[in-house]
Amino acid sequence: MLEPEAVTPVTLYVCATCRAAGDTAEPRAGARLLAALQDAVSLGAYPGITVESVECLSVCKRPCTVAVASEGRWTYVYGDLDPVASAGTILDGVALYAETPDGIVPWKARPQEFRKGVVARIPPFPPLAAPRITDAAE
Amino acid sequence: MLEPEAVTPVTLYVCATCRAAGDTAEPRAGARLLAALQDAVSLGAYPGITVESVECLSVCKRPCTVAVASEGRWTYVYGDLDPVASAGTILDGVALYAETPDGIVPWKARPQEFRKGVVARIPPFPPLAAPRITDAAE
Repeated sequence: MLEPEAVTPVTLYVCATCRAAGDTAEPRAGARLLAALQDAVSLGAYPGITVESVECLSVCKRPCTVAVASEGRWTYVYGDLDPVASAGTILDGVALYAETPDGIVPWKARPQEFRKGVVARIPPFPPLAAPRITDAAE
Repeated sequence: MLEPEAVTPVTLYVCATCRAAGDTAEPRAGARLLAALQDAVSLGAYPGITVESVECLSVCKRPCTVAVASEGRWTYVYGDLDPVASAGTILDGVALYAETPDGIVPWKARPQEFRKGVVARIPPFPPLAAPRITDAAE
């Protein structure tokens, strides 16, 4: 486990209103994913990662959805996530993100769910003075 | 025209590498949209809006793509934009965004391209202390 002070804080936004078309189960899939992520983080294995509930990330056609943001790093949005099975994978992927200076994890190191489920990425805001490192996002 | 000092700065990120499948035209559609937006902004009608080129926003299946970000406001990502016809619409929509405290333009006031083309939205980062205003994002 990394020491908490070694990690630049990361916010993991989780859409709590996500649900698949026709799925009337309560709590919603997004709320179930949120609870799974909060439970996992509360155990202390992911220092520096804060899970935050959001009412809607506007990715309604690809539930469940999360976004990861951190000062000086690219923001990533992911969809097509499973409300139960994906929680550990998400946190492992976000932990890799937290270890980078700019939020860009090498393509091959990214969890399969992140490679297939990427919805968008946004440059660090406010813009960095230094030239950005970019990579292809197949 | 609003006075420049009345507007909290807004960054409009434009994917310069976007192109439709099978479209081999150069410059790419994304680069053409970028040029159209830069030309329009250079005329001075959109104070406070900075257009910035990005190599990839990871929305490759919905070209052309832009993202709009501003301190204390939600970030929005839009796709399915036309490289020529959309430039004016995008800037008018971003100008509405720049007039809000939180980046949330009432649904009915949003350009049709933004309603249909929304890819994702991300809460203000770093998180605001005050409760967020949210709205449905159909």
